[in-house]
Amino acid sequence: MASEKLEHLKARLAEVADIDNSASLLQWDMEVYMPPKGAEARGMQLATLSALKHRQFTSAEVGDLLSALDDAELSEDERCLVDVTRYDYERAAALPEEFVHEFSEAQTRAYHAWIKARAESSFPQFQPHLDKIVELNQRRAEYHGYEGSPYNALLEDYERGMTVERLTPLFDAVAPRQSELVRQIGESFAQPNAAWLKGEWDEQAQWDFSIQILNDIGYDFEAGRQDKSVHPFTTNFDMHDVRITTRFSTANPFSALMGSLHEGGHALYEQGIRPEDRRTPLASGTSLGIHESQSRLWENVIGRSLPFWKRYTPLFQQYFPDKLDGVGPEEVYAAVNRVTPSLIRVEADECTYNLHIVLRYRLECDLIEGRLAVEDVPEAWNTQMKELLGVDVPNDAEGCLQDIHWSHGAMGYFPTYALGNLYAAQLLRVIERDVPDLWEKVEQGAFNLLLKWLREHIHQHGRRYTPVELMERVCGEPPDAEPYLSYLSTKYGALYGL
Amino acid sequence: MASEKLEHLKARLAEVADIDNSASLLQWDMEVYMPPKGAEARGMQLATLSALKHRQFTSAEVGDLLSALDDAELSEDERCLVDVTRYDYERAAALPEEFVHEFSEAQTRAYHAWIKARAESSFPQFQPHLDKIVELNQRRAEYHGYEGSPYNALLEDYERGMTVERLTPLFDAVAPRQSELVRQIGESFAQPNAAWLKGEWDEQAQWDFSIQILNDIGYDFEAGRQDKSVHPFTTNFDMHDVRITTRFSTANPFSALMGSLHEGGHALYEQGIRPEDRRTPLASGTSLGIHESQSRLWENVIGRSLPFWKRYTPLFQQYFPDKLDGVGPEEVYAAVNRVTPSLIRVEADECTYNLHIVLRYRLECDLIEGRLAVEDVPEAWNTQMKELLGVDVPNDAEGCLQDIHWSHGAMGYFPTYALGNLYAAQLLRVIERDVPDLWEKVEQGAFNLLLKWLREHIHQHGRRYTPVELMERVCGEPPDAEPYLSYLSTKYGALYGL
Repeated sequence: MASEKLEHLKARLAEVADIDNSASLLQWDMEVYMPPKGAEARGMQLATLSALKHRQFTSAEVGDLLSALDDAELSEDERCLVDVTRYDYERAAALPEEFVHEFSEAQTRAYHAWIKARAESSFPQFQPHLDKIVELNQRRAEYHGYEGSPYNALLEDYERGMTVERLTPLFDAVAPRQSELVRQIGESFAQPNAAWLKGEWDEQAQWDFSIQILNDIGYDFEAGRQDKSVHPFTTNFDMHDVRITTRFSTANPFSALMGSLHEGGHALYEQGIRPEDRRTPLASGTSLGIHESQSRLWENVIGRSLPFWKRYTPLFQQYFPDKLDGVGPEEVYAAVNRVTPSLIRVEADECTYNLHIVLRYRLECDLIEGRLAVEDVPEAWNTQMKELLGVDVPNDAEGCLQDIHWSHGAMGYFPTYALGNLYAAQLLRVIERDVPDLWEKVEQGAFNLLLKWLREHIHQHGRRYTPVELMERVCGEPPDAEPYLSYLSTKYGALYGL
Repeated sequence: MASEKLEHLKARLAEVADIDNSASLLQWDMEVYMPPKGAEARGMQLATLSALKHRQFTSAEVGDLLSALDDAELSEDERCLVDVTRYDYERAAALPEEFVHEFSEAQTRAYHAWIKARAESSFPQFQPHLDKIVELNQRRAEYHGYEGSPYNALLEDYERGMTVERLTPLFDAVAPRQSELVRQIGESFAQPNAAWLKGEWDEQAQWDFSIQILNDIGYDFEAGRQDKSVHPFTTNFDMHDVRITTRFSTANPFSALMGSLHEGGHALYEQGIRPEDRRTPLASGTSLGIHESQSRLWENVIGRSLPFWKRYTPLFQQYFPDKLDGVGPEEVYAAVNRVTPSLIRVEADECTYNLHIVLRYRLECDLIEGRLAVEDVPEAWNTQMKELLGVDVPNDAEGCLQDIHWSHGAMGYFPTYALGNLYAAQLLRVIERDVPDLWEKVEQGAFNLLLKWLREHIHQHGRRYTPVELMERVCGEPPDAEPYLSYLSTKYGALYGL
């Protein structure tokens, strides 16, 4: 009886997953291969699939099946599936259809206003739209309900179980320590030599190098592919079809390479989902923060380590025979870890990155909790930039208009980027304990033990545990800032002779 | 009141079109970019979208709206939309869901059996599956109903209004005349010199040449793209996103080039659909035969003409500087029109192609009408090949197992290929009358007048007219074999000095 209901539920969920994965392919194609005139129809197709998915998933049929399974005798895995499905169902059903529609229309208007406002570096043009986005997010929080801050209801969409009460102390620990480190680095006399980075870097050689590294770390090209796009991203339509994109700068060979490692980290997570979870809500990374821990681990912890460059500098030299004359692993390691406080988050280095996030988090909390008026955003932004990073913001385009996220209506998303860094450092401690020869292996270009560890402890679980549960399970402690701060000060202390 | 119902109907149809176009993108990706391990999930996604589309389209809601609009006062265009929709609705609703399911399962089994049977050149392995396919197609005909032959009900799916009563006389006129022409050509002493075609033809140069020609004929790369695939095809997700694929042979420069012109002809048709028909059942070519008339017109009538090669031989020489030494337009024209009776339909030249189709048509009619037993197919095939083309079939792989169509369950499809040739010749007569300097323009590489004519008389109408209606409207006569036979004997008579 219960097993019949469960099969019935799974059939409905499979259909919903198929629609969702189809929409993901439409989006991938839009970013990668769609001819420009195809955009108009594509928007309509995506809207239809999205509405269809919502309708199928929030149907009374699914609701009834969930209720019938509430007290049923189920295996642990089945219970997990039902619970995660109920959680998604309640989140999806909480928002009235008119609200979803209003939100979607406001997004579209805000996005187009933002494009123009950023091009003209004029916050006032974007202000009424941001006003609307804040107001809609406040209403969204009310629909979902929350304890403590209404911002908790927004965080929940990206990082289940994360709260302001947890996050603020973490970020308040991170900010002053990272600011101070950046200040000291700026004053250090041990600045890396990066003169050899000047000039043109051949795009095809960058591509070939990135493909080799992706193969080495264990990305399965039989179950994925790399393409080019304006903004790099990872997407998947199944655990056996996980695709990444990258972009190239002929002025900087690390941009594409580190981008491939970053997206490769996301992709390894999705390729590591259990095939038996296919077409269920369990079949994806558990949160944006945990996802980011995987991308940052591969990009920064591994890809910006000295052992990594001991392995890859000779290959780097082979791919660019006329560029790395006399440049050894130490020089590459120093250059790939240069620290430069800058205005733009997406170009920020490992050492300054979290500070960009802390700024956005503080502003978002203040906006949602009603302590900051939208018209005061540019001033608050510029003040925080000076305080956290020591830089002056010359205009709104390079300041509070730089990110796409708010124009998409997304608030509560940014913190997951910094959480990913924190999680990665916590995971590293456990990995170093469980895989004592980790760094020797990295120096040999042998990543299989690391990948095996990640598969076993993180990837295969999909959405079975919330991020906090997962961290506690794997690390024996909740999210914590100390491992990251210690990792940063050790690494950059040595690099900059502090 | 009626206008409200019509808007309601259009909203439902738009949703159905979006699902259908999404499925087409999934299929395109599957042929072009999908990594191999993605196939399993992709099959499920396509099955879900197909079921969803069927469910939405054949819903009681759509049925009720159509009934309510039956006697409503509508504009000519609105009436057309409602009538075409009702036609599709009745075709779709005629097949019980269990039958569709049974058909689909039989297809999957037949397809896999065919792959193996062809590889081992063993018809007996495929025979039980073909038996089932024939039986299912006979039942399909009964569900749809028909007058005269049950084969008419199958033809209807690909060429609305076409019947055995119309088709048999056309093909009976074509077959002996084409067979005799091929026989005479085989005995001619004026065989073209094709020695210069030997050797390797650079793939990139072929690609670049094909892109230039596609641009020249008016294919809009802002509303489409060309990619590579194992089997060339055209697909579209909107009139502003119409994509083609091609494949390369380094042994033969005409394979990709003529393939691009062929698919380009299909694509120009779909790019010429009226934007206001977007997301309605009117927004596509009216039949496979009319579609094939467009591809054949560009590939054969234009692309294998002497004026075309007067224009393109100098460019051909530029793309392959070391290959065409001393080869002029006449030599290229002769080489691209070489006639060689062969075993394989997809490699057949213009002069022999229809004979391959007549053979398949006769066998399919006999199978569906019960005059031929499936076990006797190889013998019937081989006998007809000898009679029509004068060739001996050495094995089933190169004989009755060569095509994928039957394994897909498709019967009634093949005739549209030959109809396309016939239609193209009929259209050419009218075009030559309406555009008197057609061939001067082709010789200048100026195709805009031709494209304008096709847009006006064929493309923009979408599915407003059935193929027979369209031919009568444009040519003043129903489908006819005489223009094609006359075109062939004039062209090849001159080429082979008959």
